[in-house]
Amino acid sequence: MSEHDPGHTSFTDQLLAIWPRKRWEGSIVLVAYSGGPDSTALISSLAELQPNRQRLVAAHFNHGLRDSASAGDQAFAKQVCRDLKIQCIVGNADQAEFKRERRGEGWESAARQLRYQFLVEKAEQSGARYIVTGHTRDDQVETVLHNIIRGTGLAGLAGIPRVRCLNEAVSLVRPLLNHSRQQVLDYLQESDLPHRLDETNLEERFTRNRIRHKLLPWLESEFNSDVRAALVRLSQIAAESQASLREIAEGVLDRAIRQGDKNKVILELEPLRELSIHLRRECFVLVWQRQGWPLQSMHFHHWQQLAESTEPLSNTTLAPFPGDIQVAQTDTELQIQGPPHVN
Amino acid sequence: MSEHDPGHTSFTDQLLAIWPRKRWEGSIVLVAYSGGPDSTALISSLAELQPNRQRLVAAHFNHGLRDSASAGDQAFAKQVCRDLKIQCIVGNADQAEFKRERRGEGWESAARQLRYQFLVEKAEQSGARYIVTGHTRDDQVETVLHNIIRGTGLAGLAGIPRVRCLNEAVSLVRPLLNHSRQQVLDYLQESDLPHRLDETNLEERFTRNRIRHKLLPWLESEFNSDVRAALVRLSQIAAESQASLREIAEGVLDRAIRQGDKNKVILELEPLRELSIHLRRECFVLVWQRQGWPLQSMHFHHWQQLAESTEPLSNTTLAPFPGDIQVAQTDTELQIQGPPHVN
Repeated sequence: MSEHDPGHTSFTDQLLAIWPRKRWEGSIVLVAYSGGPDSTALISSLAELQPNRQRLVAAHFNHGLRDSASAGDQAFAKQVCRDLKIQCIVGNADQAEFKRERRGEGWESAARQLRYQFLVEKAEQSGARYIVTGHTRDDQVETVLHNIIRGTGLAGLAGIPRVRCLNEAVSLVRPLLNHSRQQVLDYLQESDLPHRLDETNLEERFTRNRIRHKLLPWLESEFNSDVRAALVRLSQIAAESQASLREIAEGVLDRAIRQGDKNKVILELEPLRELSIHLRRECFVLVWQRQGWPLQSMHFHHWQQLAESTEPLSNTTLAPFPGDIQVAQTDTELQIQGPPHVN
Repeated sequence: MSEHDPGHTSFTDQLLAIWPRKRWEGSIVLVAYSGGPDSTALISSLAELQPNRQRLVAAHFNHGLRDSASAGDQAFAKQVCRDLKIQCIVGNADQAEFKRERRGEGWESAARQLRYQFLVEKAEQSGARYIVTGHTRDDQVETVLHNIIRGTGLAGLAGIPRVRCLNEAVSLVRPLLNHSRQQVLDYLQESDLPHRLDETNLEERFTRNRIRHKLLPWLESEFNSDVRAALVRLSQIAAESQASLREIAEGVLDRAIRQGDKNKVILELEPLRELSIHLRRECFVLVWQRQGWPLQSMHFHHWQQLAESTEPLSNTTLAPFPGDIQVAQTDTELQIQGPPHVN
């Protein structure tokens, strides 16, 4: 095993192309490390690239969902980190609280939420500027296809973002998002690196795994052998389109917005009226995001109603929106009053 | 059979909701009539709604692909039109020319092109303002899914447009695009209307039919029973997003463009520089469309190169673009010289 194997070179080069060294070499990087192939390849390649082991920290979250297998993953993760001379922080899900969610549809999303809470907390404690995860191009393809099937807009079509700000101190980065799963496996083999197979991945009962093991191979063999590349391209176009639309909405909103206080927004309607209804809806989504108002309970017809309320009309008060947000309209302005403060 | 059956009322009401009577009742409408269920329901419901039979013309295109079955379709279409007291124009594909294309990948698209040529020609001869086709919501769903699998951008994701201008005199309209295929079949049954089954629809060898008969039912049963609605929504969002982006690009282009003569465009770069790279690419697509320059041979990297050439640089002449289009750049302008005229 040498750092100059062609396999290594291309794997780490591709990583550096998506995430240049100057961005991270002075910072502490926290690696979300499960022990599976993707995150094993990630932590090992980062260890190759970063001579200063103090600047790499691994964080392993034990969901405790698979009893002894979960304990095995944890022991394995700690051993790999010892070998790489990287500190490994372990977190455990509160089983009592977690199992309540576990039976319903929401358990996978509950698991994700707990894991990210843990990662952000440990990143902050370690002074890490970045949290990195081992998501690959195949995860991207599966996510995009999953979102298309269950129903999505442009944002869902854009799939997994390469970079996301979690808060002002910590960003989430996916340095392997251009690598295929096969490249990961080749790298592990060339480096003679062991990894744990995540057993839930083989179970067909989860939608995600049926997409991976049945739908995608079937689309490849029956319809288009290049379907993965097609989905990656589509997600890039969607991300770019969404970003362009967002940028335009932000520009117009900056001209339109007059903020009374933290819980009230006054919008001048003139600038909004230059926009298509579609972009006006986008502006209101932005207002809600900026104000931190509840988005979950807002449906399409709510955004549509707000967009339509920018048209000239006599003074009107609309029915309250989810979260008790009040909107009143004059000829030239929209006054949006946030939810009453609960003390 | 009565015009006041509830099935009829809802079928024709839904048609009128998507295509209001005042738009077409004074005009001649040419119905693309294959004899299949969708176009039979379309021609019959339009005949119900239009008391003036002079204003409805049917056009049947015989591809001659299925020998006696094709002849049967043609005889059937003429009979239905006789019963409805609607003139029926029949066109035949030039088999010699057509069969050359028939073996390759391109034959389905060649068939479509011949059919549309025939329809436009007959619309112009009949003085028709509209050509209408029987495409349904199910066609829309299949098209969107097909485009996703074979690779598409936002435009392909938008799917079949409800209205398209073919030239300044004739528009193509799909009045059944909100109807499901099941609604069509129910309407035919309630009206006791016969129709011909298009036998090519049952053959699994065409991608489109595999999507209809295998992929969509499988997605519905294994992943999301509501997947059709999800795809329709996605196509609407994509169409709106594309239209919003297009509108913005058009606005900026109108400020940027200075046209020397018919074959030369001078673009001021200042207005373009306000835009994201993505929207700058969109602007150049628009320039090419407006000028009628060849789009087929332009690939992503060409548009990207044009978008990047809007950045400040010293006077440069880029390598010629497909179709021998020359682009020269100054600090403030881009001069685009169309293809040399062939006399």
